[in-house]
Amino acid sequence: MKRVALWVTYEGTSFSGYQVQPNSRTVQEEIETAVSRIHKGEQIRIHSSGRTDTSVHARGQVVHFDTTLAIPADRWPKALNACLPDDIRIIEASYVSSDFHSRYLAVKKEYRYRVLLRQEGDVFRRNVTHHVPYQVSISRMQKAAETLIGTHDFSSFCAANTSVVDKVRTLFAISIEQDHDELVFKLVGNGFLYNMVRIIVGTLLEIGAGKREVNELSSILAAKDRTIAGKTAPGTGLFLWKVSYAEPIFSELY
Amino acid sequence: MKRVALWVTYEGTSFSGYQVQPNSRTVQEEIETAVSRIHKGEQIRIHSSGRTDTSVHARGQVVHFDTTLAIPADRWPKALNACLPDDIRIIEASYVSSDFHSRYLAVKKEYRYRVLLRQEGDVFRRNVTHHVPYQVSISRMQKAAETLIGTHDFSSFCAANTSVVDKVRTLFAISIEQDHDELVFKLVGNGFLYNMVRIIVGTLLEIGAGKREVNELSSILAAKDRTIAGKTAPGTGLFLWKVSYAEPIFSELY
Repeated sequence: MKRVALWVTYEGTSFSGYQVQPNSRTVQEEIETAVSRIHKGEQIRIHSSGRTDTSVHARGQVVHFDTTLAIPADRWPKALNACLPDDIRIIEASYVSSDFHSRYLAVKKEYRYRVLLRQEGDVFRRNVTHHVPYQVSISRMQKAAETLIGTHDFSSFCAANTSVVDKVRTLFAISIEQDHDELVFKLVGNGFLYNMVRIIVGTLLEIGAGKREVNELSSILAAKDRTIAGKTAPGTGLFLWKVSYAEPIFSELY
Repeated sequence: MKRVALWVTYEGTSFSGYQVQPNSRTVQEEIETAVSRIHKGEQIRIHSSGRTDTSVHARGQVVHFDTTLAIPADRWPKALNACLPDDIRIIEASYVSSDFHSRYLAVKKEYRYRVLLRQEGDVFRRNVTHHVPYQVSISRMQKAAETLIGTHDFSSFCAANTSVVDKVRTLFAISIEQDHDELVFKLVGNGFLYNMVRIIVGTLLEIGAGKREVNELSSILAAKDRTIAGKTAPGTGLFLWKVSYAEPIFSELY
């Protein structure tokens, strides 16, 4: 038995999120179906670095599963892609040690969030950005965002309906860059709570638009109360960008 | 009565093309429905610079219609976009003279065609590129493409099921540029036959892949026979980019 890790990309638009649920099209089910087909119908469970919600995308999702097949690592992507719908693509596969776990051994995760800043929406980016037709101050958001760096109880930035008890996470870095008519938020941390990136971005946009003060984030953090923070930004702009482990498991392209 | 011209963009993926047809979602019907709503239900016919097929996109489609409403030009996009689905966006509106016609007065059209050159497809570009996983020589295609510039009978590059009699068109320019992992074909002409761009790109890709000779295009043109040219490239990569008139009707952004 050998353990395989996959670098998975998907466009989240037509999925009811990552995790399997009845009567819904999910990323996990599509991958499990493809993996099972390669194993002549044998049911094989795949494990991921974490779930993503409806309409959320992945540029660098990592999943793993165990196999008895002796397929060379570089043949897995082609074999699986032939069985997968075209909104999921496997970019690389790598054999990892039998104690590797895509979720438990992740030491760092990066999410990106794309905001489209213009009057009218863009038909070609409507599913991969959050369209903001109003003015926002990048410098206000950048200044505010610094407050979030470090280790904090992020309860105020976690969706209320979660079963996670420990809401302390470390945010290593957060940056906001302008790329033509887009803003790209990059967040790197040791882990993220449910909806955490989207609530952070939603709150920062309110600060950028002048609806909240630049220094409000410390009191929002201190409140440990979801209702004090801003709106959850839509899933369309969010990308699970990269998951890091103690040792890199894919090529430099990842 | 005043005539309004609109700069229209759409992502063609979820449309059965531009032109109205029964029991199908079309760009024309969506725009006519939106225009009629603004006119309190009055049926208003819109005219376009030309049709596009299923899955073909428009960055710069031009349509026009007549109105009795006294709406300032810069208010039309907002008003119409509020009634339109988000895969169609009106970018600009302009009042034009009553003898303007988006189709008959067009003097120049530009189409672009995007080819994605990589081993595995890209989930984020699957609807807006044609994925080519094999090697192609750009210089071979560039050299071959030069043969097409000028005024020719393009019968060999016209879908068989067309009612157009005169198949002579002038191609002003054709270029092929590499942009990271994409090839962008740009074609500018005084008009294009049905499927003409897609058949030209399909044939050039066969030349690029070495399946045909670089100098084959003159004999293909001379044959005036659709069956002699290459395959029709898929609609996903094709964009109606720009339509030009004797006098510009939109801002410099167009």
